[in-house]
Amino acid sequence: MKTKPLILVTNDDGITAPGLRSLIEVMNEIGEVVVVAPDSPQSGMGHAITINSTLYCDKIKVTDGPQLEYSCSGTPADCVKLAINELLDKKPDLCVSGINHGSNSSINVIYSGTMSAAIEAGIEGVPAIGFSLLDFKWNANFKPLKEYIKKISLEALKKGIPKDVVLNVNFPLLKNGKIKGMKICRQARAYWVEEFDKRTNPMGREYYWLTGTFINEDKGEDTDEWALNKGYISIVPTQFDLTAHHSLQQLNTWSL
Amino acid sequence: MKTKPLILVTNDDGITAPGLRSLIEVMNEIGEVVVVAPDSPQSGMGHAITINSTLYCDKIKVTDGPQLEYSCSGTPADCVKLAINELLDKKPDLCVSGINHGSNSSINVIYSGTMSAAIEAGIEGVPAIGFSLLDFKWNANFKPLKEYIKKISLEALKKGIPKDVVLNVNFPLLKNGKIKGMKICRQARAYWVEEFDKRTNPMGREYYWLTGTFINEDKGEDTDEWALNKGYISIVPTQFDLTAHHSLQQLNTWSL
Repeated sequence: MKTKPLILVTNDDGITAPGLRSLIEVMNEIGEVVVVAPDSPQSGMGHAITINSTLYCDKIKVTDGPQLEYSCSGTPADCVKLAINELLDKKPDLCVSGINHGSNSSINVIYSGTMSAAIEAGIEGVPAIGFSLLDFKWNANFKPLKEYIKKISLEALKKGIPKDVVLNVNFPLLKNGKIKGMKICRQARAYWVEEFDKRTNPMGREYYWLTGTFINEDKGEDTDEWALNKGYISIVPTQFDLTAHHSLQQLNTWSL
Repeated sequence: MKTKPLILVTNDDGITAPGLRSLIEVMNEIGEVVVVAPDSPQSGMGHAITINSTLYCDKIKVTDGPQLEYSCSGTPADCVKLAINELLDKKPDLCVSGINHGSNSSINVIYSGTMSAAIEAGIEGVPAIGFSLLDFKWNANFKPLKEYIKKISLEALKKGIPKDVVLNVNFPLLKNGKIKGMKICRQARAYWVEEFDKRTNPMGREYYWLTGTFINEDKGEDTDEWALNKGYISIVPTQFDLTAHHSLQQLNTWSL
């Protein structure tokens, strides 16, 4: 009999987040689980890494179960680097990140610590998936997602994720009704329009809060935003070769 | 006569960095310059944004010249958001980021605060270029780069950077001899193998320093690594649609 797959679990909301706990429960049904997650919330950290400071990493146990757990002072990308290169004896068969409390669809993938952890695993040659729910509440209901996460993860282990590709999976927030199914999508061309909320602190100094409005002008019916709005789970294959290959020709006409 | 272009200048090494100062000098020759840069070094911050904390932004003056300068407590991406959406009266004609003290070629683009600032501008519809020198020293010699930066920036203003594309420009470090020219390149398929340096702090607690070795197995003569090794400036068109379009077909064969 084949040995159980080794699964690395991480996130960006921190090691105590309910979304991570749900993900651990699903993964414990599939394989041997090692959790290496940030000791504090790291939302919006993008692909930050710790290069001018030190990292702490402690073996802890947050909830019951067969999983090993490590709490790390770094970013999500740090956690994955530390897990693969220092803590684990062998390369994991799969890395899963999340379940994020909040959307990582469309352009949000760029700012996402959840997806950066998955992308970091992908760069290091480990098949990886990021999972996010369109609900930023701490007590969001992750239970209905579990069967889908199990199905996607088992299929990824069986079929193999394409080389140099990382899956970005987002779940719709449905108040009534059921999830309609899953769709393979492309990233919608959307963006945020920021509105800075300017205030004055008790010492009289001005400061800002970053707020914003999400604008999606992409009418395509093959995008993640379309799928999520219609009640589907969106699965976007994501890559870390950022080259805009289609523009190489045009740039070669420049006088340089 | 046409008015001078409005140019936003930022970086990730902080507002006092010599690389930024060199970039400001070049841009003052081309247009009306507004600097919005981090008040402290932000290397390796990737595309981090400040969402659970506040931002300070102060008008200051670091060096002589016609440029306006703002020092900001946030990340490079925060600086660009704040500049475009709050500080500037109109959208800039160009955003330049750098000159970074150190390489942002190949996979380093993912971790780069310099490039994330440029990419953030691109997302917001502003033509953008990140400049980096393969020398992380504070007193690196940026002088020989100036003529090239001016040429690339003027060409970008004249021809227009392709839509949804941001340029990643890296300069080779040449001990002897001259820069051979410029090459439009793709991102080399390279990665870092991390080696964690494990130490014990004065209180007896273990901690890590992240160190690593850069591995480039990509033998292509069209990559940024190839160009830089041969003494050329590399220019990689970079995009923020991370969809791996080539893998959509394969994933649609999965049983989901």
